[in-house]
Amino acid sequence: MDRRSVLIQLDTDPQPSVFDAVVAVDAGAEHLFRHGGVTPANVRDLVYGALFTRGPADLSSTAIFIGGSNVAAGEALLEAVTKTFFGPFRVSVLFDANGANTTAAAAVLAALQGSGGSLQGVPAAVLAATGPVGHRAARLLVRLGAKVAVGSRRLDRATEVAEAIHRATGREVTPFAADTPDALASSLRGQAVVIAAGAAGVTLLPASVWQDLPDLKVLIDLNAVPPLGVEGIEASDKGAERGRARAWGALGVGGTKMKIHRRAIQELFASNDKVFDAEQVLELGRSLG
Amino acid sequence: MDRRSVLIQLDTDPQPSVFDAVVAVDAGAEHLFRHGGVTPANVRDLVYGALFTRGPADLSSTAIFIGGSNVAAGEALLEAVTKTFFGPFRVSVLFDANGANTTAAAAVLAALQGSGGSLQGVPAAVLAATGPVGHRAARLLVRLGAKVAVGSRRLDRATEVAEAIHRATGREVTPFAADTPDALASSLRGQAVVIAAGAAGVTLLPASVWQDLPDLKVLIDLNAVPPLGVEGIEASDKGAERGRARAWGALGVGGTKMKIHRRAIQELFASNDKVFDAEQVLELGRSLG
Amino acid sequence: MDRRSVLIQLDTDPQPSVFDAVVAVDAGAEHLFRHGGVTPANVRDLVYGALFTRGPADLSSTAIFIGGSNVAAGEALLEAVTKTFFGPFRVSVLFDANGANTTAAAAVLAALQGSGGSLQGVPAAVLAATGPVGHRAARLLVRLGAKVAVGSRRLDRATEVAEAIHRATGREVTPFAADTPDALASSLRGQAVVIAAGAAGVTLLPASVWQDLPDLKVLIDLNAVPPLGVEGIEASDKGAERGRARAWGALGVGGTKMKIHRRAIQELFASNDKVFDAEQVLELGRSLG
Repeated sequence: MDRRSVLIQLDTDPQPSVFDAVVAVDAGAEHLFRHGGVTPANVRDLVYGALFTRGPADLSSTAIFIGGSNVAAGEALLEAVTKTFFGPFRVSVLFDANGANTTAAAAVLAALQGSGGSLQGVPAAVLAATGPVGHRAARLLVRLGAKVAVGSRRLDRATEVAEAIHRATGREVTPFAADTPDALASSLRGQAVVIAAGAAGVTLLPASVWQDLPDLKVLIDLNAVPPLGVEGIEASDKGAERGRARAWGALGVGGTKMKIHRRAIQELFASNDKVFDAEQVLELGRSLG
Repeated sequence: MDRRSVLIQLDTDPQPSVFDAVVAVDAGAEHLFRHGGVTPANVRDLVYGALFTRGPADLSSTAIFIGGSNVAAGEALLEAVTKTFFGPFRVSVLFDANGANTTAAAAVLAALQGSGGSLQGVPAAVLAATGPVGHRAARLLVRLGAKVAVGSRRLDRATEVAEAIHRATGREVTPFAADTPDALASSLRGQAVVIAAGAAGVTLLPASVWQDLPDLKVLIDLNAVPPLGVEGIEASDKGAERGRARAWGALGVGGTKMKIHRRAIQELFASNDKVFDAEQVLELGRSLG
Repeated sequence: MDRRSVLIQLDTDPQPSVFDAVVAVDAGAEHLFRHGGVTPANVRDLVYGALFTRGPADLSSTAIFIGGSNVAAGEALLEAVTKTFFGPFRVSVLFDANGANTTAAAAVLAALQGSGGSLQGVPAAVLAATGPVGHRAARLLVRLGAKVAVGSRRLDRATEVAEAIHRATGREVTPFAADTPDALASSLRGQAVVIAAGAAGVTLLPASVWQDLPDLKVLIDLNAVPPLGVEGIEASDKGAERGRARAWGALGVGGTKMKIHRRAIQELFASNDKVFDAEQVLELGRSLG
């Protein structure tokens, strides 16, 4: 019997992502079932269709991808999907709404590379850490042993993120307000790694601020749309020397992100029990070497 | 020119069934065009797309599957689809909304097996015969020559089903009310075959009732979600001895159902003039041997 | 890495066209991503998914088809799609909402054939030129050097079309009112080519009118649903002699239309910078010989 790989794309946007679909077929998914406008309410029947059609021995040939521009909505799908599994009736899942997991993992891999292969004890700050990519990047830095500070324009929101990461990891994270250039400069003093994870077309970090940071070694920007998030670097930077630091722009990080995304799709079909969220995606990225 | 098989999935639910899609590709459909939220109003243009794209000699390489959780809505699609055909301009169609046809056929095949290969003159009862699976199972039993009784909690609804089957087959069917254990026990006395086609998680037939039936030979339950529809058997039973009878649970019937479903998809591409509704699906199941 | 051809079907109807999908896979598109209910508002993200997933060298393996029954809505998509392209970031696009471009091109190719291979200076009239197919057919006739008249029941609407074609081509086009048989006969006197591009099931041109036209050589009807648009010919006519003229019916033109459609899909994957609108589709049709 034919047991070609089936990837079920569950997307919370009305039109399911073409980006995720192209990556899926380029990674080798043979059949792609695309669903837009998916809500937790219609997840159960869709997942049952994955669980009850192929025998237990063939479940690894079916997998689920969860995407869409709204990361919180995607997280609700992920929860609904995994809750539907029971006993051996499960298939592997990749969660990458808005590319948040693959982007955060690629950013942290750049930070790791720029730090000589270890982030243990390294002071690292994430700007716009309240967004889904920034939040994940900060959490992943913590997992790798960095001493992490998370910034937002509002201190209360930065504090919320710090507390959420503390709950998830048991490690302390320092919140800071990035509401003025002076506050920013002061909070970033001493940092060796800075990741800017802000919205498209918004400058978070002026050149005058980062060029004066004495200990800065790695500068990463995840915004590809001018003006960039970090002033004075290029979107295509990939380890380029910028002042005292090495810099990565959004396109420089993007190549790694794509590799991780494709590889994660392939890994879905290696077994039927994987759930790839941020940590697992980072691990997979590290294994790419 | 490329003439790979195209299956057009018309589903009345907003999200087209993943179950039906996996079965379709596992049966070898090379291209699957999936449509959710289909209504009779948009059937015509979709069917025209099947009829007017490949030459008359190639129409057997295109086919239509009609599904969705609402069997009555699916029947309306089936009518709209077949009305769109004219002259030689037709493609083969499989109707299996909510799995009703393949499930009913698999249940009746189990009844046939448990009855030594013939249902001619065999007294058989269907519980919850007012649902689409029960209704079809009863009709198929009649087609095979069984003396059929149809039960519902309400006698008037059982009577409606009996009359509908009479109109379809010209054969008499006995309605009965299954509103109390005593009524049930009384109506089932003398039956050799009982099929429980009720909703998930609802017990229709207490063990105390069926264990006392003197002539019972075959006991079939189509509900896989505990508590089962027939108390005292297992969902995985597949001809297991239970008291005086041999029993089939939902999973025991399910394997046959899947085989019929896949084979029916394959048969769609053998010619361009088949319409597989319950009777044709049963016939096809019998040919699987 | 796998770089199989991906065609993104953007359709303005709620259910994306099955017709266009079958043609796409028959033309060899390996992956088809189908989107219904597409509006200009959701085009950008879908197109980004085409542009940012494969390297610049592989962009020709991804392409876009724009369809749907509403030609004006499709034109708005086409504009939104091409506006999203920038620099080398573009993929090839075929616009064929309601089959308007391939049908108009096939009709004009028939006119060309019936006129001995050239339309230079040939008087040609289009009936129902206010519809999308008629409008395009008239514009294409102008491009090939014909002296074109465009008819509508209302002179003001015919005048609008004539002016639009003048703006697009710089050439004069004569509007006429086709509100009575006498007006029609008078306007068509002297025409060598007449194309009827009206709605399904509506007769535009009575036999008594066209049989008296002294210079008529080519008669083309694009309505396949009886009563035909041109009285006294057959839908399957393909260069048949009818009175003084050679006639093409909708089915006679349809074979050419299908060939053009399939070939255009294939051409999408030859480079990443083509936009196939009416003129390009005609050119491609001419190259089929």
